[in-house]
Amino acid sequence: MITEHSFSDTYITLAHGNGGRFMRELIEHLFAKYLDNAWLDTRADAAAMPFDESDFELMITTDGFTVDPLEFPGGNIGSLAIHGTVNDLAVAGATPRYLSLNAFIEEGLEIAVLDRLIRSMAEACRECGVDIVAGDTKVLRRGQGGGVYFAVTGVGQRNRSINLGIDKIQTGDCILLSGTAGDHGCAVLLAREQFGLSGTLKSDAASVFPVTRALLDLPGLRFMRDPTRGGIATVAHEMASAVAGTVKLVETAIPINEQVKTVAEILGYDPYYLACEGRVMAVVGAGDAEEALKRMRGAGCSEAAIIGEVQDGRTQVILETALGGERILEELEDDPLPRIC
Amino acid sequence: MITEHSFSDTYITLAHGNGGRFMRELIEHLFAKYLDNAWLDTRADAAAMPFDESDFELMITTDGFTVDPLEFPGGNIGSLAIHGTVNDLAVAGATPRYLSLNAFIEEGLEIAVLDRLIRSMAEACRECGVDIVAGDTKVLRRGQGGGVYFAVTGVGQRNRSINLGIDKIQTGDCILLSGTAGDHGCAVLLAREQFGLSGTLKSDAASVFPVTRALLDLPGLRFMRDPTRGGIATVAHEMASAVAGTVKLVETAIPINEQVKTVAEILGYDPYYLACEGRVMAVVGAGDAEEALKRMRGAGCSEAAIIGEVQDGRTQVILETALGGERILEELEDDPLPRIC
Repeated sequence: MITEHSFSDTYITLAHGNGGRFMRELIEHLFAKYLDNAWLDTRADAAAMPFDESDFELMITTDGFTVDPLEFPGGNIGSLAIHGTVNDLAVAGATPRYLSLNAFIEEGLEIAVLDRLIRSMAEACRECGVDIVAGDTKVLRRGQGGGVYFAVTGVGQRNRSINLGIDKIQTGDCILLSGTAGDHGCAVLLAREQFGLSGTLKSDAASVFPVTRALLDLPGLRFMRDPTRGGIATVAHEMASAVAGTVKLVETAIPINEQVKTVAEILGYDPYYLACEGRVMAVVGAGDAEEALKRMRGAGCSEAAIIGEVQDGRTQVILETALGGERILEELEDDPLPRIC
Repeated sequence: MITEHSFSDTYITLAHGNGGRFMRELIEHLFAKYLDNAWLDTRADAAAMPFDESDFELMITTDGFTVDPLEFPGGNIGSLAIHGTVNDLAVAGATPRYLSLNAFIEEGLEIAVLDRLIRSMAEACRECGVDIVAGDTKVLRRGQGGGVYFAVTGVGQRNRSINLGIDKIQTGDCILLSGTAGDHGCAVLLAREQFGLSGTLKSDAASVFPVTRALLDLPGLRFMRDPTRGGIATVAHEMASAVAGTVKLVETAIPINEQVKTVAEILGYDPYYLACEGRVMAVVGAGDAEEALKRMRGAGCSEAAIIGEVQDGRTQVILETALGGERILEELEDDPLPRIC
């Protein structure tokens, strides 16, 4: 059987999972090629469908969770699975309502660990006001799973009048971030004993629904996204690509925890590529930027900041450095940190 | 930290995944204990929720797929994932509409294989009239996944007037099966080279929506289920438990492919525990049994049969043998065949 591939790889590599170029190509050239339909948008966090004659659209999102280690400061794979899914609905402008849960559990997992994960999951559901309404478990042979993997699908509702999208971004718009960048990626990294580092840093994993709800009726709101795999640099690339222009981020404006800076320096990672799991990047018309910042802070995000803007120019992401120079933030290719979410 | 377990295991075993007693206990005593809510019913194939003021209920189901090998006669893990999810909505009386897809892909998987799986998935979607509207991929390190695992969530709609459920089953009801039992389990088993067997048998994996749609307005219809993991014996146990009575299956009435009989005998498996992926077990009032059979056959199920009935008596499943004797079909404990779906 002859199979065409418009991308050049023969085998799946870890780089196909890192949120960067290889993953985008895998998704566009294989999954989307076959599965294309009127609702599927590989660039959106959640898909919107009409449901009967309702005033609301049905919003659907899904996410897989493979974080290693299963438990880390500030959360575990159970709570993360809820927050991650709820956040994809929230940034799409929806109210999260129902979840489904798939658990792929490896033979030999200690049941006391599974118990803690599911308990955290239940606590996160209560905090977020959502219910798990359907579930399935599969047990994988020892050595055929990484302890446990979860897949969670979220169903929410969105008023038909809401009109957000990455294609709404315009030159001159401002980019906001609701808190410090990279805490989740860094906390998971510290929890991996192989690095021989430790610290007090916690993952930022949390629901962003209070923030998105606060921004939702702002007339100049164009687009929101939670910068998970690949961090804020990867979301900035998606924005630059959508607008076919330059996204400029300002180094001194981006809130970054001191510990994240230090760890990133020691390990040679760029913190802009580290995952957040409780932050929103929002794009708003320049005239609404101060109001958006005020609303983010009012929703409890004391470190929220305006971190950059969308400019005319070639499709690229530029960082204005503390010294006033500029450097290009490339699209992620190698995977700095697999199994981060 | 002290954690209670009302079930006695310390580590996850393969038996926690086989559809039998251990799996039921894991789900009831751990997942359902923490995640309980008004919508979740661990005994249902899909959950029903109101959505706005619509005449329809929103139906949600989810399923994980781990079948080994990834490709087998009559299907592959891609088409199976669609059929399995669509079928859970169909037997709940819903019209399947939207799906989400999670792919957990192991590093090193040949992309040509993945291409075939996703293409089959797309074909199955077209046959079933559903669309994948949301997706996510995660790449697992080599050795931390079995090639590929899929998790699919299905969203459907069901008219509020439909009232099916395992709790609707009554003494005296008849049990129908829409085709031969165990073809999928047996076909997957033959596809595993380790058994040194071969044959021409194909998996029965297919959408059962044409059958469920044909039965849906039958007044005596109580309950439908697709007998997947654990086969028809496991569904019979669920029915016996729900009605607190005896389910009697009649050996000579159960359609079984000759090859399935032979393979089951050679390997010492009981064919009643082998999975189907394109069959419906339906329970109907005795007065509607012949009409239900006629409708099943009209929907293309030429081998459909009335295979048993629900009787007063202790909670058990009895097989009336060809010789006129009776033997008890125990609830599944050991896993005869992991990674079958």
